Amino acid sequence: MKRNKTLSSLGEFGLIDFIKKNNTRPQKYHNVCIDIGDDCFCFKSERNSKYLVTTDILIENTHFKRQWSTPEQIGEKAVEVNVSDIASMGAAKPLYLFISLGIPKDTQESYVKRLFKSIKAACDKHGIHISGGDTVSSEFITVSITLIGMAFDGVITRNKAANNDLICVTGTFGDSGAGLDILQKSDIKTLKLFEKQLVKKHLLPQARIKTANLMAKNINITAMTDSSDGLFKSIELLTADNNQGACIDIEKIPVSKALRKFSGGDKKKLYSYALFGAEEFELVFTINPKDKPKLQRLVPQVSYIGTVNNTNGVKYFENGKKQKVEYCGFKHF
Amino acid sequence: MKRNKTLSSLGEFGLIDFIKKNNTRPQKYHNVCIDIGDDCFCFKSERNSKYLVTTDILIENTHFKRQWSTPEQIGEKAVEVNVSDIASMGAAKPLYLFISLGIPKDTQESYVKRLFKSIKAACDKHGIHISGGDTVSSEFITVSITLIGMAFDGVITRNKAANNDLICVTGTFGDSGAGLDILQKSDIKTLKLFEKQLVKKHLLPQARIKTANLMAKNINITAMTDSSDGLFKSIELLTADNNQGACIDIEKIPVSKALRKFSGGDKKKLYSYALFGAEEFELVFTINPKDKPKLQRLVPQVSYIGTVNNTNGVKYFENGKKQKVEYCGFKHF
Repeated sequence: MKRNKTLSSLGEFGLIDFIKKNNTRPQKYHNVCIDIGDDCFCFKSERNSKYLVTTDILIENTHFKRQWSTPEQIGEKAVEVNVSDIASMGAAKPLYLFISLGIPKDTQESYVKRLFKSIKAACDKHGIHISGGDTVSSEFITVSITLIGMAFDGVITRNKAANNDLICVTGTFGDSGAGLDILQKSDIKTLKLFEKQLVKKHLLPQARIKTANLMAKNINITAMTDSSDGLFKSIELLTADNNQGACIDIEKIPVSKALRKFSGGDKKKLYSYALFGAEEFELVFTINPKDKPKLQRLVPQVSYIGTVNNTNGVKYFENGKKQKVEYCGFKHF
Repeated sequence: MKRNKTLSSLGEFGLIDFIKKNNTRPQKYHNVCIDIGDDCFCFKSERNSKYLVTTDILIENTHFKRQWSTPEQIGEKAVEVNVSDIASMGAAKPLYLFISLGIPKDTQESYVKRLFKSIKAACDKHGIHISGGDTVSSEFITVSITLIGMAFDGVITRNKAANNDLICVTGTFGDSGAGLDILQKSDIKTLKLFEKQLVKKHLLPQARIKTANLMAKNINITAMTDSSDGLFKSIELLTADNNQGACIDIEKIPVSKALRKFSGGDKKKLYSYALFGAEEFELVFTINPKDKPKLQRLVPQVSYIGTVNNTNGVKYFENGKKQKVEYCGFKHF
């Protein structure tokens, strides 16, 4: 019954769509370059400096648990997640970070200091200045971060991929999702080495900002996003806006040795994690095929997993045979 | 024992001080005009456009309760609180708003839509464009907002009051604090008219941005802040940084008829609310005495409650007699 719909049934993307549909058109003085709905919002100053803004919120028991993560890991991840959004826009530098912390009253002072020091250390690594914040009491630890960066040249959006563009990715996929499952199901004191590697990818993702800067300065990237909601979702984001589609070679999706070991030869399990495991923060982007040789020389580690086409919808192939892939990703609502 | 200190004993201002002390100096490319610790952070673009940034987080049961506030009131207050920080910087226009919402899974879709629509309506009122956001699940409703604005000319900080400057305020004080106490202690269905007026000031504060713009464009305001943490704290903020002090005439602090009625002739109660009641969002500012006639013509409603001096500490007087004022304000931790 529509009247009694809860947010759980509406879903996170439904809410963002609702905001987009009900939003007002920006006025001329807003100088909007890229509106709500991409990895970052972008506005320009009166003299054409382009600013990127992103915001993310991490809430205890939704995004992390205190028994799994040290305050150092929570702080570093909160920064990296936002830096990853800046990286997704191309050649850019993160500059100003604002933290709102919700902290339970009985939290040890030392815990809060460790959390803050890790946020600061992650900021230092990226040359970010902590520029403001708000601290309030709450029942659960809440870390809300807004990050402002500056774009050097053009800004790469999600929706400019052309027909026949190659779909490219950095890193490997599925580790973070498998790491989360391990944390949820296993005794974390008795983990094997490959399990520890997967868990580490979940707890301490690293934004690909250096690679993004290097590529964006040298290659014409036609569209880009990060894989924060999983590779499947990223491919959808890069194609759906233009009613485009894609053909993806499943076996070309890069996966780690640790994930292969964890999947124990079960290919369905392996590629389910690789496609739907969230919080990976790798770059998923498109280029014109003629730029492939240049990109191969520049960043040899990039993988080429498929091609954009003009059909509506993304199709998955394994050794030339069409495969149905099933959703088992993380849902916020 | 220091080792076991909780955040409750450290306090909110202690944490912000910790952040300030442990922060890194901004680099040249950051173009920082006003660093962390004022109502807004301020940076300038390469060509001198000045941007103001503020962030605030409202968490259910800390800042509001669902049984007290409609989603419309929660949304509007969340925006006004941030607009008030922009107003505190002088002649400025709020431009871009970013919302991170934490929403419990079982929340009705209609509730979230009402919350968002009220945020949008408040933004429309101020010409603000909703520019981004993040929605996640949480145990309690969490509304984290970052607002970016642009300063027209100079920016008014908290720490530039001079000796003999007059301390000026807009509006009345204590209503919001009394409103909160009424909500906590009374059956809200059977409130008297004056109680309803006090409650409304708590649930729906209005940012004084029009007055701030008008004054900042015409008068040399030497220092300004808003009274989000109570008038007592605001006066401290305007003087403490320069080891200044102030003399305040308690009976000159403007209070509403509703608060007088609520206090029932108990002056101690009346001025305790007026000085320590938080979430008032009035402007507290200083001017050179020679500018008083001009300000009186421009904004007749402004009250003049005291004078800045070079002694360390703020002293309170009632009919020329020094009074001790006691803290009973709202503490986050």
